Amino acid sequence: MNEREPESQSGEDRLIARYFRPLATHPGARALIDDAATFTPPAGVDIVLTTDALVGGVHFFADDPPDTIAKKALRVNLSDLAAKGSRPAGFLLSLALPAGIGEEWLEAFARGLGADAQAYGCALLGGDTVRTTGPVTLSITAFGTLPRDTMVGRSGARAGDLVVVTGTIGDAALGLLVRRDPEIAERWQLDPAQRDHLIERYLLPQPRNAVAEALRQHASAAMDVSDGLAGDLGKLCAASNVAADVGIARVPLSDASSQAIASDPALMETALTGGDDYEVVATVPAEARDALMADAKAAGVALTEIGIIRADRPGMHFLDQVGKPLLFKKPSFSHF
Amino acid sequence: MNEREPESQSGEDRLIARYFRPLATHPGARALIDDAATFTPPAGVDIVLTTDALVGGVHFFADDPPDTIAKKALRVNLSDLAAKGSRPAGFLLSLALPAGIGEEWLEAFARGLGADAQAYGCALLGGDTVRTTGPVTLSITAFGTLPRDTMVGRSGARAGDLVVVTGTIGDAALGLLVRRDPEIAERWQLDPAQRDHLIERYLLPQPRNAVAEALRQHASAAMDVSDGLAGDLGKLCAASNVAADVGIARVPLSDASSQAIASDPALMETALTGGDDYEVVATVPAEARDALMADAKAAGVALTEIGIIRADRPGMHFLDQVGKPLLFKKPSFSHF
Repeated sequence: MNEREPESQSGEDRLIARYFRPLATHPGARALIDDAATFTPPAGVDIVLTTDALVGGVHFFADDPPDTIAKKALRVNLSDLAAKGSRPAGFLLSLALPAGIGEEWLEAFARGLGADAQAYGCALLGGDTVRTTGPVTLSITAFGTLPRDTMVGRSGARAGDLVVVTGTIGDAALGLLVRRDPEIAERWQLDPAQRDHLIERYLLPQPRNAVAEALRQHASAAMDVSDGLAGDLGKLCAASNVAADVGIARVPLSDASSQAIASDPALMETALTGGDDYEVVATVPAEARDALMADAKAAGVALTEIGIIRADRPGMHFLDQVGKPLLFKKPSFSHF
Repeated sequence: MNEREPESQSGEDRLIARYFRPLATHPGARALIDDAATFTPPAGVDIVLTTDALVGGVHFFADDPPDTIAKKALRVNLSDLAAKGSRPAGFLLSLALPAGIGEEWLEAFARGLGADAQAYGCALLGGDTVRTTGPVTLSITAFGTLPRDTMVGRSGARAGDLVVVTGTIGDAALGLLVRRDPEIAERWQLDPAQRDHLIERYLLPQPRNAVAEALRQHASAAMDVSDGLAGDLGKLCAASNVAADVGIARVPLSDASSQAIASDPALMETALTGGDDYEVVATVPAEARDALMADAKAAGVALTEIGIIRADRPGMHFLDQVGKPLLFKKPSFSHF
């Protein structure tokens, strides 16, 4: 866009120039003035591609802070790249905006997006901005790189492998309940820090890109936990044609989730089957366990061993303290 | 997904398995059961990336045939890849569906998408399917390849280059008017074939991928015409810091558009400034003109010389039969 020629700028061009061009720092983005971006792949790599969409009123609240909406949209994609063992390289943003969205919202949105693009080394390469009569809808396609044929898939888990998970499970699902009904925090006897922790974990995933390289080197299978640990580990088991036994007492919980579950034990099911964790569940051969744990520790990512893979009919089983399987009403979150 | 384990399948999984897995024929798509796809770039290539979103009620009518909606969503992206001189390699689909969408719609949508993915050699590699309270919203990110550092940009036009355009201009903008008001076809005295031609051109772009390699070899600059020839060539001029003179009588029109404009000469402005052409406008050094024309002819793509690039203040100018510049109220289409 030539600044001397304002009559050739449409409203969309102005919006892009003002809010998104400052983020397009990668030379392949061509300052967002071309039809397409370019990416020059390093020799010997595979490109890992993922796309995730977020819809206002479905995946976030319309009045969530716009910077966190932008960050969440990027982070749910970064989480996929992390689980596959790849290094983020760039992303494209497709943004459908209703007429009521103002400058302040866009400025905050772009600020959040730019901060995370820089923090995670994942540059904005291009995008499209359109009008919608519906809610704000964002779709991000992110891509990363890794040495050829080394993507960590879902299908590599083998009998005897250990099951590990990053971070803590269930915070976001419980945080969503608190976000919907603030009084629930009192019923659960959460202190303000615990309440804020759960809400924050729903608003803003913490993708585990710091542990991606360790997963690539040691894990036999991995996926990100976005639709609940129960359902997602079940999918990994189905893809690998194995069973997983997970000790329910071994599943890592935050102080806040532990307190909520102590107040209402039925919330354990919510924690294990709710969505939006954006942690990584992985399997690792027993002989690689210590190396993976050491690398994760060095990367500053908590990694907890929670179970074991068995050669059996595919499925995942939560076992209580005495080894008895637990059954859930709905193993996985789905909007459909 | 393991078919023996239906209880681990969510509604989204079933939808993907039923309608989209049959399209995921590329090995990098991993049958859509993983978090991400892989693409192994051939040696010495750049990846060209583009994303375009379509919103129901904004970019298509809610009652348009679902197979053409799918095709249009892919083709508008293919059009960008063509204009940049790249060969399509694959795409990811993000699909937000309102609750009312049924099996029949999805079946037709997937059928149309699969037919074009095959016809254009652009494989479905991955996607995301989400719920929305708004209209059907599709975002496609497509990528292609080309030899390193050979993408045809917007900024390479030089004084003396000739301006060429593929196909015919204005059909889709006029087709949209016919689509909105069927009686208009009578006022324009179109015969049924002419009427159907305009409507079809709005429904279903014809991306010019067949001429991509010729553009890559000979064009100095190119872009796809999606927001009107006037505005888009203006953008190319701004990016190249040049002016373009286009003879209005040289702009290629279909029989149908010629008839409509003969009935109402004011429609010429609609044809030149309306959107959705999805043709390619390019500039070519005079010495490469004949080679480009010959290659386009061999590829079966009509290519018409319409003007010349001048060293002047950036801008594009339509000249009438006696060389007098024409002025338009709104050079480019924008939803913003």
